[in-house]
Amino acid sequence: MSNDNASANNAQNPAAKLWGGRFSEATDAFVERFTASVMFDQRMGLEDIQGSLAHAQMLSEVGVLTVEEFQQIEGGLKDIAEEIKAGSFPWSVELEDVHMNIESRLTQRIGATGKKLHTGRSRNDQVATDIRLWLRNRIDQIGAELTRLQTGLVDLAEQNADTIMPGFTHLQTAQPVTFGHHLLAWNEMLSRDYERLMDCRKRVNRSPLGAAALAGTSYPINRARTAELLGFDAPTENSLDSVSDRDFAIEFCAFSALLMTHLSRASEELVLWTSSQFDFIDLPDRFCTGSSIMPQKKNPDVPELVRGKTGRVNGHLIALLTLMKSQPLAYNKDNQEDKEPLFDAADTVLDCLRAFADMAPALKPKKENMYAAAGKGFSTATDLADYLVRKGVAFRDAHEIVGHSVAFAIEQKCDLAELSLAQLQQFSEVIGDDVFDVLTLEGSVAARDHIGGTAPNQVRGACERARTLIASR
Amino acid sequence: MSNDNASANNAQNPAAKLWGGRFSEATDAFVERFTASVMFDQRMGLEDIQGSLAHAQMLSEVGVLTVEEFQQIEGGLKDIAEEIKAGSFPWSVELEDVHMNIESRLTQRIGATGKKLHTGRSRNDQVATDIRLWLRNRIDQIGAELTRLQTGLVDLAEQNADTIMPGFTHLQTAQPVTFGHHLLAWNEMLSRDYERLMDCRKRVNRSPLGAAALAGTSYPINRARTAELLGFDAPTENSLDSVSDRDFAIEFCAFSALLMTHLSRASEELVLWTSSQFDFIDLPDRFCTGSSIMPQKKNPDVPELVRGKTGRVNGHLIALLTLMKSQPLAYNKDNQEDKEPLFDAADTVLDCLRAFADMAPALKPKKENMYAAAGKGFSTATDLADYLVRKGVAFRDAHEIVGHSVAFAIEQKCDLAELSLAQLQQFSEVIGDDVFDVLTLEGSVAARDHIGGTAPNQVRGACERARTLIASR
Amino acid sequence: MSNDNASANNAQNPAAKLWGGRFSEATDAFVERFTASVMFDQRMGLEDIQGSLAHAQMLSEVGVLTVEEFQQIEGGLKDIAEEIKAGSFPWSVELEDVHMNIESRLTQRIGATGKKLHTGRSRNDQVATDIRLWLRNRIDQIGAELTRLQTGLVDLAEQNADTIMPGFTHLQTAQPVTFGHHLLAWNEMLSRDYERLMDCRKRVNRSPLGAAALAGTSYPINRARTAELLGFDAPTENSLDSVSDRDFAIEFCAFSALLMTHLSRASEELVLWTSSQFDFIDLPDRFCTGSSIMPQKKNPDVPELVRGKTGRVNGHLIALLTLMKSQPLAYNKDNQEDKEPLFDAADTVLDCLRAFADMAPALKPKKENMYAAAGKGFSTATDLADYLVRKGVAFRDAHEIVGHSVAFAIEQKCDLAELSLAQLQQFSEVIGDDVFDVLTLEGSVAARDHIGGTAPNQVRGACERARTLIASR
Amino acid sequence: MSNDNASANNAQNPAAKLWGGRFSEATDAFVERFTASVMFDQRMGLEDIQGSLAHAQMLSEVGVLTVEEFQQIEGGLKDIAEEIKAGSFPWSVELEDVHMNIESRLTQRIGATGKKLHTGRSRNDQVATDIRLWLRNRIDQIGAELTRLQTGLVDLAEQNADTIMPGFTHLQTAQPVTFGHHLLAWNEMLSRDYERLMDCRKRVNRSPLGAAALAGTSYPINRARTAELLGFDAPTENSLDSVSDRDFAIEFCAFSALLMTHLSRASEELVLWTSSQFDFIDLPDRFCTGSSIMPQKKNPDVPELVRGKTGRVNGHLIALLTLMKSQPLAYNKDNQEDKEPLFDAADTVLDCLRAFADMAPALKPKKENMYAAAGKGFSTATDLADYLVRKGVAFRDAHEIVGHSVAFAIEQKCDLAELSLAQLQQFSEVIGDDVFDVLTLEGSVAARDHIGGTAPNQVRGACERARTLIASR
Repeated sequence: MSNDNASANNAQNPAAKLWGGRFSEATDAFVERFTASVMFDQRMGLEDIQGSLAHAQMLSEVGVLTVEEFQQIEGGLKDIAEEIKAGSFPWSVELEDVHMNIESRLTQRIGATGKKLHTGRSRNDQVATDIRLWLRNRIDQIGAELTRLQTGLVDLAEQNADTIMPGFTHLQTAQPVTFGHHLLAWNEMLSRDYERLMDCRKRVNRSPLGAAALAGTSYPINRARTAELLGFDAPTENSLDSVSDRDFAIEFCAFSALLMTHLSRASEELVLWTSSQFDFIDLPDRFCTGSSIMPQKKNPDVPELVRGKTGRVNGHLIALLTLMKSQPLAYNKDNQEDKEPLFDAADTVLDCLRAFADMAPALKPKKENMYAAAGKGFSTATDLADYLVRKGVAFRDAHEIVGHSVAFAIEQKCDLAELSLAQLQQFSEVIGDDVFDVLTLEGSVAARDHIGGTAPNQVRGACERARTLIASR
Repeated sequence: MSNDNASANNAQNPAAKLWGGRFSEATDAFVERFTASVMFDQRMGLEDIQGSLAHAQMLSEVGVLTVEEFQQIEGGLKDIAEEIKAGSFPWSVELEDVHMNIESRLTQRIGATGKKLHTGRSRNDQVATDIRLWLRNRIDQIGAELTRLQTGLVDLAEQNADTIMPGFTHLQTAQPVTFGHHLLAWNEMLSRDYERLMDCRKRVNRSPLGAAALAGTSYPINRARTAELLGFDAPTENSLDSVSDRDFAIEFCAFSALLMTHLSRASEELVLWTSSQFDFIDLPDRFCTGSSIMPQKKNPDVPELVRGKTGRVNGHLIALLTLMKSQPLAYNKDNQEDKEPLFDAADTVLDCLRAFADMAPALKPKKENMYAAAGKGFSTATDLADYLVRKGVAFRDAHEIVGHSVAFAIEQKCDLAELSLAQLQQFSEVIGDDVFDVLTLEGSVAARDHIGGTAPNQVRGACERARTLIASR
Repeated sequence: MSNDNASANNAQNPAAKLWGGRFSEATDAFVERFTASVMFDQRMGLEDIQGSLAHAQMLSEVGVLTVEEFQQIEGGLKDIAEEIKAGSFPWSVELEDVHMNIESRLTQRIGATGKKLHTGRSRNDQVATDIRLWLRNRIDQIGAELTRLQTGLVDLAEQNADTIMPGFTHLQTAQPVTFGHHLLAWNEMLSRDYERLMDCRKRVNRSPLGAAALAGTSYPINRARTAELLGFDAPTENSLDSVSDRDFAIEFCAFSALLMTHLSRASEELVLWTSSQFDFIDLPDRFCTGSSIMPQKKNPDVPELVRGKTGRVNGHLIALLTLMKSQPLAYNKDNQEDKEPLFDAADTVLDCLRAFADMAPALKPKKENMYAAAGKGFSTATDLADYLVRKGVAFRDAHEIVGHSVAFAIEQKCDLAELSLAQLQQFSEVIGDDVFDVLTLEGSVAARDHIGGTAPNQVRGACERARTLIASR
Repeated sequence: MSNDNASANNAQNPAAKLWGGRFSEATDAFVERFTASVMFDQRMGLEDIQGSLAHAQMLSEVGVLTVEEFQQIEGGLKDIAEEIKAGSFPWSVELEDVHMNIESRLTQRIGATGKKLHTGRSRNDQVATDIRLWLRNRIDQIGAELTRLQTGLVDLAEQNADTIMPGFTHLQTAQPVTFGHHLLAWNEMLSRDYERLMDCRKRVNRSPLGAAALAGTSYPINRARTAELLGFDAPTENSLDSVSDRDFAIEFCAFSALLMTHLSRASEELVLWTSSQFDFIDLPDRFCTGSSIMPQKKNPDVPELVRGKTGRVNGHLIALLTLMKSQPLAYNKDNQEDKEPLFDAADTVLDCLRAFADMAPALKPKKENMYAAAGKGFSTATDLADYLVRKGVAFRDAHEIVGHSVAFAIEQKCDLAELSLAQLQQFSEVIGDDVFDVLTLEGSVAARDHIGGTAPNQVRGACERARTLIASR
């Protein structure tokens, strides 16, 4: 987003601008750079060509271009695509944007026929088409990385269906759970993200091409045909809306912000778990870096950075919502500001998913530490309460009995399971010898044996269902 | 959100708190008020009872409660529901939240059996269930208002399929469009909103009940049964995720922010159109207010206020994203902060939709003013360019010819259609007498005759398709 | 922000509205409630009266009102102030806002003279005055709570100038610091907040009264006099700006968001420190609550809730920025939406500061746990590096030597100080017996003896400077 | 922010990393690129060198470096600065960040002495120093552009102290004002921005250098000296806070968001005023561009783009607030994410101010159009009310009388001034022949003759005061 290297090419002659017919004064160099977009919209070069190819083919099919003209244009555009891929395309700030750069280059290469390409369209529908094509590509890449990450998580979860760790609420030890169950909680968040991504994709995948500047065009264009050629589900329904709609970008950023929120939560846990206070997992060195002053440090850089990147994506969402607020129809120049936030949101999401998908299978739980931590903090107190209820005590009374038992154990500096039967019976006479079975971690975990519960066999069942769901994509 | 009237009831006895067993010190009054939620979560009183009824019925079906116990609980809860509806329920800050208030009241009314209701659940899954039920209700109301608004817009659009007005880009007159076409652009935005709302509803409509505190419960609960009783599509898949997930609230706020963005855009246009500079529509008095100092003013208050309310909804979205960022699993007290933004977003959306649905059919276009404005600003210049292309001129060359013609007309202080043939022919010899047909507003509009174009018959077709789509809901 | 209880009083007669002269149609009840603000702006009732008193006094001084008229108005307004304080004022939605309610009540009480109060002003400058007065009050309360919190922190810091704890970067143990030093880091954040609050207050404390609707008034008003009577530093400079400016509200919300960010950071640390993994502090029971299902839990509710409330304040900031974006001059109805976010931001900040100011002196460090944790994780590795540098090794080489020593100690499962001299000398021959002095926690901490460093005497000096700064307020 | 061109250089040998001593596994290329910052933090290359020069000089003054060592380092760094300015510095992703790149290059150039530069500091305080230096520079540039813009506005305001235009509330014509008065409203917003910028600068201009990693250093550094050498007002007070504080970046973004909000408001008005409906000003061609399809268009691109850019700056503010939320002390990798939003906010503000400062003096009011518009919409109705009050009618009664008069004039399709005396007297008998004086635009404007009012002589006085204030900077 820096402008430090912005080109200072000044237009020598205002009429050289493609739209310069009625202007009597040269655009000065600063304004030229300030209003240009080619520095960032050149990323859509190949999509711009893809859209132009479909448009030109349709124009030839409806008779606006001759077949020869189409073939000339097609050849020229394909050559330009090669230039772009090779990095040799001579982007020019003077030509404002990706569209003008490519069209101007086309005319340079194939002569006057190039000037016919823009028949029946406008930059307004052209840019809307380009962005949708670009975003659809990114969505598909993001979907693939999400699937790779989820696959890794489910595999690791299944391997750890029995690995006991403390479950926290309020960051206080609450009840034992399994590491597999915890990982599946992450997977659930990502499953919803995938659903939202696909819902968003439906709305991205509609063709605005043919809306022209704002009202449609008087040429006999076939919008269904260009939609089909570009793989869109259908043309959009209203030309004014088509050139002005950036809902899809906002919806994508909302998807992204929520996904990043999920990754920030997993990252927070990874950072906690790699602290020496928790020491629950080992994160391979390649996801960490060291310190310039403290040689002993092994910092969980990747999760920290992902957590930090949540901010930028929330920011992009607000940028786009602010951008569109109160804009009257149809296209306004403000909309040029849609691209950088969208591009960066997509890049960020893709990078963070890739980092997580690489990292997930490499997480090494330190099972002894997890187990030991789960045994502290009276994590089976709820099991004692449930035991009492099964013996006929009302839940709220059981709750109070356990409260007093815990208070007593804290005084004694021991865990509930370490109290004697006699000590426990002080608080309720219904307690019998069988109480000690429910106070073990394994017993506690195994007892939560219903859909969504942390019992190891439930975790295994959930892994299977998750795999089936992923496979159905 | 004010705390001015917060109750200052202090707990006389800490053990009186339902969870007070292990506490040795009284919660002081300020902290009690600061941490309580009953001031706002009492709005979910009826949903809380609905959830408890399903939970209790399921508990009796699986044998955890007897049928008599269930009937006692059912009777008690129904009486409490009546108290809530009548406004006579004695909400108490000392009892913290809606759940404790109702459960405590139940025990007060039906005695010890009331203490059994909380068996096999926790406030963590209970509140998640309540919010989802509450939100599902609001979503359905919002969907209905969206449909009412869209219906009104489509009707008005059809009546104005031929009403010519200027189409703007950059708020400059660009090309003539019809008022019906413009209204359908609004309708398209709202159609996407409706799609997003339904996509969101799918994810709201899943049952977290049974996740208990975080790990599930050791009672033989039937989560599918409570899901069914509550009209949820299915139980959620993971207990840790279930108590901590607030995606649905964020997704709803993202939907709301985008909807409000659309209403802000329509509002901006209504404000412009009621200015004396535009003077395109008449807004009935009941949507306006006057000035305390300027008796002649008739201010478009409703659109202005809707436009302003966009801010609060964007704010709520950010509030919830910020809230969830970096939260470790599972439930944390932070989540208590989810309700006020969500409630207010839903209220705001519902109110604004209602205002718009009331207002839309009452908009009165001032057709003469619209028509006159469409005739200014060389709005048919594109038609001249298209004419030249049809005569064999390349688009970019045509563009330049028209540019020079417009510059000349500006000098002459007249419109293109007012130039003589000879004057026009200065700029291109291919211009003939037939040029004047394409320079009329009616000709220009009618020529954009393809799907999504502004031609009146296209607008009528679009109205029909829109009605079919709405009818299919 | 709920509208559930909104009044449904309908205007029987449109002319009954104070501005109703030119309207021919009754405002319907929904729109009336939708556009009314009295539900929330009644909070400014006393400020509205304060402003009216100053205005009326000035009007009598310049001869627009007679002394008798002023005295009548003064008496009436003072009586109304009593009604408001007593909670007996009959607020009416039909009368829209706090201004109309009070003025109408005044006329009811004192007759026709009441109708003269609004001479030479408008609701536009009146509301701007009211908000500024309200906010100035809140700023002063917030400043006082900030001072109370900082005083508590500095006291606790001084008591803990020698209390050693681990200093973290990346949540990895980095180097030992003192708890006092850590608390002073919080204090620095709050010192900047206080500076920003005072900077904001300067810009709040200017008088818009007299700007009237937008252009000033034709009465011979004395704006300097009303500014003086209301304790404002000066009148504002431009009437259009005065009625439309809400910078002060945005600036206050920006201050608030940053303050809440600071409190969220301290809260995060309190939550970490009360976890059983860290166990660094004891938080008194009155700032915690328990669990409905897990009787052993003691949850750090107050810090969690404060952390969560960061979201709502960030949200309010965005709400106001979104509100003001692109608003043309001068007053627009959108601005009615400024109050709820501002009120709630101020309430939230005040409550959270109060909670923290109550809590800070009650924090009990568990010194042994802190000390033990500081001894882990090779926290004095930097001291070894510095030792090597003092012996003539270049910093980057020293860094590498320490890196190898740490790797070796990890293999040996011991700390650096537990390696033998011979073992250490493997990595560098310059290491001598004196190395063990620099490897102690006390030695490490004491060595950072420069301004801003963690050496206990520096911490004490910093406490003194902090107290002086606070005392100078 | 794109990663398309990210380097794929892989570390052949993990020990080659400056912090690589204890690592056994190569950082893979993706993670290397993902965690690196040199792509964007190289912008601070010269500031990094400036900080290193001061640090090295201080180290030599306190005896940690010899004078010869300092001179070597100084020479090496100055050469590197030349390389950077010339664009020939070989930035390497493998070396992570600007600091490592420069330090590594220094050692390459001057040998082992280069390894001594990092003595007594860390990248944590180094980067904090760099950002503050960079931002201080930008603040000074921004201050200068603000002053240039304000100077242009005040000049234009003075030239138009008598130019009558309509004043709007609710975008409805309210009362006549002068164009000069309107421009001064913009100037007031910018004056507050300047104040806020200077308040922010105070907090930017403090030196964190010497905080080292988090706790200070055991070397006998002189922080006051480096602060002095770098032009900072003083060293910061607490090392933990120093490396973690990003308040200054958030405060700068809050300033920026509010400034952009102001520019968005002015932009909105420029867009309105250049529409053919308003047609109040002429915007020189160089701030506009044309259309690719509509040759007659002259689009107000610069104001539209500035308005759109408000979004990105609001977004950056949220990005940084989200980033810092809940971060425990001290430095975390998340903070690497602070730079791009900050850089882009500063660039955006500077560019937008430059565009406005260039554009402001070039605005050409179309005085006849403004005057004609001011005469419509009963803009002197308030003057009639004030006239009635001066004749003894109570304000609220006068208001009603004018309301009826306006309603009558609307029926007669004329303005108030066009009614006959007899017609006016229908509504109040106190109306006399002198009423027509107050109904002129000139009379109305001149009557608002108090500080902040729109009377031409008040506007001229305000221009003088504004110039004095600007001159005092």
